[in-house]
Amino acid sequence: MMVITDRDNALFEAGIKLGALYHQFVGSPVNPETVDSLESAISQSISVQPYVRHITVNIDRDMVGEKAGGEFGYCELEGRMLDVEATIIFKDVTAQVALKFDRELDYPLMRIIEVLEK
Amino acid sequence: MMVITDRDNALFEAGIKLGALYHQFVGSPVNPETVDSLESAISQSISVQPYVRHITVNIDRDMVGEKAGGEFGYCELEGRMLDVEATIIFKDVTAQVALKFDRELDYPLMRIIEVLEK
Amino acid sequence: MMVITDRDNALFEAGIKLGALYHQFVGSPVNPETVDSLESAISQSISVQPYVRHITVNIDRDMVGEKAGGEFGYCELEGRMLDVEATIIFKDVTAQVALKFDRELDYPLMRIIEVLEK
Amino acid sequence: MMVITDRDNALFEAGIKLGALYHQFVGSPVNPETVDSLESAISQSISVQPYVRHITVNIDRDMVGEKAGGEFGYCELEGRMLDVEATIIFKDVTAQVALKFDRELDYPLMRIIEVLEK
Repeated sequence: MMVITDRDNALFEAGIKLGALYHQFVGSPVNPETVDSLESAISQSISVQPYVRHITVNIDRDMVGEKAGGEFGYCELEGRMLDVEATIIFKDVTAQVALKFDRELDYPLMRIIEVLEK
Repeated sequence: MMVITDRDNALFEAGIKLGALYHQFVGSPVNPETVDSLESAISQSISVQPYVRHITVNIDRDMVGEKAGGEFGYCELEGRMLDVEATIIFKDVTAQVALKFDRELDYPLMRIIEVLEK
Repeated sequence: MMVITDRDNALFEAGIKLGALYHQFVGSPVNPETVDSLESAISQSISVQPYVRHITVNIDRDMVGEKAGGEFGYCELEGRMLDVEATIIFKDVTAQVALKFDRELDYPLMRIIEVLEK
Repeated sequence: MMVITDRDNALFEAGIKLGALYHQFVGSPVNPETVDSLESAISQSISVQPYVRHITVNIDRDMVGEKAGGEFGYCELEGRMLDVEATIIFKDVTAQVALKFDRELDYPLMRIIEVLEK
């Protein structure tokens, strides 16, 4: 069996955070007036989890504005509206990861941006 | 078949909002520093839904503080931590409803407080 | 203050169930092979809640098949895919309610079908 | 900048799956009669996500039975009730990960069990 490294754990923890964020908050009712508040709450909520050094959450205002333009004046947060960057630190390893809508794949893609070991 | 009344719809809509709030946000990571932000986002999120005139959301700081006191310094929002009051207006009917932890039943109880018809 | 009736409670409870179902399960990963299992779990999960006499949950296979046809072979359960009917009984009152995608409104509409008092 | 490896991606994807499972399904109403159905739906739902080779989901029947013993005969799925093992394959790397309640920490712990590179 191979040794499990700090780097392994940094990436594993980074994945947990993005999966958690996505499935906790997607579906939340939102409109252009409340998008700031939701953004802030998502970022603060995930920031309290273990090993999170930094997180930025941006919700696409254009998509919210368009989707909220129907009969009822609101929409639900969708994965495609999210642009997230998070920095996870596990011991000496820093993993930077992102969630961003990929228009070509039509998919909210999670990916690793960078891994740094001291 | 009986006629469906505005009062029926007011109560039905009030129930929808509490069920939605509960199952959307319970499970969110939270600690004493981020509880304000989560409270505000929940109340703003539900307020954009149809027929919601007013909503107040209070999260029990004592419970959060106690639960977040473990190894990892945070906990998850639980139904028992929530104290919510919402006013739903459907045409001429106003329904006031609440979600509040019932210690005797050990259960986060949703109930109707008052129904007013003009 | 007006008296709160059994009928009020039946409608309130019916709303709670639809709101809960929607915000608990929307977002679940699904594809054509797993749609039966998800349907069954949703219906069984909601059926254990208080006052639920009967519930049927249908997920639109055509929408799932189409949405799951992309690069990754799956999609997420969306509100528009759901066709739900539930019967809630509170004392002598039976409320039948539904969640069904309304194509004209482009909205997953929850509505009261019928209320019966013995 | 360091190269991002297949191993990094395997661990990242493994984390995503556990975070998603947890925050999608925790909160679902359940009782001893419906626990089989929920278990099966969770495992099938997560299995459709990218890179998942195998997953087993066990919900603690004793905890469900005890928690569902109150006034209303049901409870909500909690993280502490879950015992999950998942195998994620990214190219030539296999990551086996788990979610299991740690009684000492009083915490539903996610951890890496093994990483294999061909």
